[in-house]
Amino acid sequence: MAGMRSAHVVALGGGHGLAASLSALRNVTEELTAIVTVADDGGSSGRLRRELGVLPPGDLRMALAALCGDDEWGATWSKVVQHRFAAEGDLHNHAVGNLLIVALWELLGDTVTGLDWVGRLLGARGRVLPMSAVPMDIEATVEGLDPDDPEALTRVRGQVAVATTRGRVRDITLVPADPPACAEAVEAVCTADWVVFGPGSWFTSVLPHLMVPDLAHAICTTGARRVLTLNLEPQQGETTGFSPQDYLEVLRAHTPDLRLDVVLADSDAVTDVDALRKAVEDAGAELVLASVAMGDGTPRHDPAKLAVAYTDIFTRGRIDTWR
Amino acid sequence: MAGMRSAHVVALGGGHGLAASLSALRNVTEELTAIVTVADDGGSSGRLRRELGVLPPGDLRMALAALCGDDEWGATWSKVVQHRFAAEGDLHNHAVGNLLIVALWELLGDTVTGLDWVGRLLGARGRVLPMSAVPMDIEATVEGLDPDDPEALTRVRGQVAVATTRGRVRDITLVPADPPACAEAVEAVCTADWVVFGPGSWFTSVLPHLMVPDLAHAICTTGARRVLTLNLEPQQGETTGFSPQDYLEVLRAHTPDLRLDVVLADSDAVTDVDALRKAVEDAGAELVLASVAMGDGTPRHDPAKLAVAYTDIFTRGRIDTWR
Repeated sequence: MAGMRSAHVVALGGGHGLAASLSALRNVTEELTAIVTVADDGGSSGRLRRELGVLPPGDLRMALAALCGDDEWGATWSKVVQHRFAAEGDLHNHAVGNLLIVALWELLGDTVTGLDWVGRLLGARGRVLPMSAVPMDIEATVEGLDPDDPEALTRVRGQVAVATTRGRVRDITLVPADPPACAEAVEAVCTADWVVFGPGSWFTSVLPHLMVPDLAHAICTTGARRVLTLNLEPQQGETTGFSPQDYLEVLRAHTPDLRLDVVLADSDAVTDVDALRKAVEDAGAELVLASVAMGDGTPRHDPAKLAVAYTDIFTRGRIDTWR
Repeated sequence: MAGMRSAHVVALGGGHGLAASLSALRNVTEELTAIVTVADDGGSSGRLRRELGVLPPGDLRMALAALCGDDEWGATWSKVVQHRFAAEGDLHNHAVGNLLIVALWELLGDTVTGLDWVGRLLGARGRVLPMSAVPMDIEATVEGLDPDDPEALTRVRGQVAVATTRGRVRDITLVPADPPACAEAVEAVCTADWVVFGPGSWFTSVLPHLMVPDLAHAICTTGARRVLTLNLEPQQGETTGFSPQDYLEVLRAHTPDLRLDVVLADSDAVTDVDALRKAVEDAGAELVLASVAMGDGTPRHDPAKLAVAYTDIFTRGRIDTWR
């Protein structure tokens, strides 16, 4: 492999999980591409999507802000794009960057070009792409929503509804079922040295990429190595009660063809190391345990610790398992 | 006077008139400051003002866009800030730049700093300042609104109401009557080589600066020379039936202490040259007639022709009257 900082790293996900991943990876490599879910139907993004018929911009905006330049320029515009109007009224809760992204889309008529312009504004250290150029919905099979029949399965539609369901999510599909992949995203995966999944909302931010046929095919067939970073704790709603190995199993169940090289988990978040190691080895991957949590009691990854862990993983290629 | 391109020119106004003036002056000098009315209560600006309690940003945005850099960067961001959302809904008719300016104000807590950041974004060739850091209303004395008594005077409040009145505007005042001037605007006037008034909506964009006490004092006492550019034709509503000399007389009536050096008028817009020349000479100024209209039948100034006229005026100082 070429020098680590010139490795092309592709990070998949959405929301705060992807932002943490990018905040780490921007310090690890000089060639970074984020591929972002576009299924959000809540908040500012949901309103823009319904009102203007555009892709939900929120997760794209958050990824761009995470890549902003280190100087005063990048820091200021990053704050501007993340700023939300607070007063009651028409603009309430709209993020400025969402409006800016949508305006560029309307003006330039091209999703990727519009995002590249926001990237230039921020001095972004990497590129942000949508997984598809069409907005989509997540539909989940959920168990446990029927009080009379705990095993009954219910179809739940929409990212917000799935992420906050009181039941247990069994699987997801996309509506439309066969959305066109973003061509630049497919190309990035094909030319990547490393592809990183997670952390993030498992069913609504991490798995959707694998439900976009052309993108899933690229992810499964690329010559890149694949790292899966597990969440620190179950997410109330979509992954209530999940063990670390459950994340892995759900991923494999949705995409049997996907081979993983490394699974990264936080040392303190894993109680049964043997069970996780077995699941990881059954998947043909190696387990890396490292301290990657914030350490302040909140279930958030620390970008600096994550950067060290990724550096370690990328530098050594297939490294020895941590014991 | 120092080389013309290093002369500090301050342009006063608002709306499309100021934008035309700035589009001309940006090619004439390298040190340009716009001082903009902040009394708008209509459209996107009016909604933001009511909803968020901020200065109406629209005229400031238009001035900034007129100063955008010549390269692809400046041209693109200028189009973005001028872009309006068209679809029905919460965002309908909001200009993106208005939202961006307001966000910077909320984030940075300072009017001038926020505008300077938008100027940097656009690569603006000059600085844009508000005449006051507080929003205000224009109140006009209007004659002819009472069908039973054509000489009765009515008070009309708000920029939109005044600009579109069916009566004849006699004078204007501001509410509040004694708004604090923007300190940077006062300083710009004090250090200017040239101060340019008009073209623009006479009562609602050109006169308001002279109703802000500290700014009016600076305008009247600065060592700068003063140029007044007359409108091309009466504006339906606030200046219905105005002759070229009426503009001058209204200005002098509102600010008796104001001395003018040059009055610039379009050759084709003046039918009674002798009457105008007499009015200009009574005001102690010199009349310059030049072809400065678009020439397409619309009552708009041509920035290129205006640039030639200003160059001529600034280069020669007090020049001979055109005959």
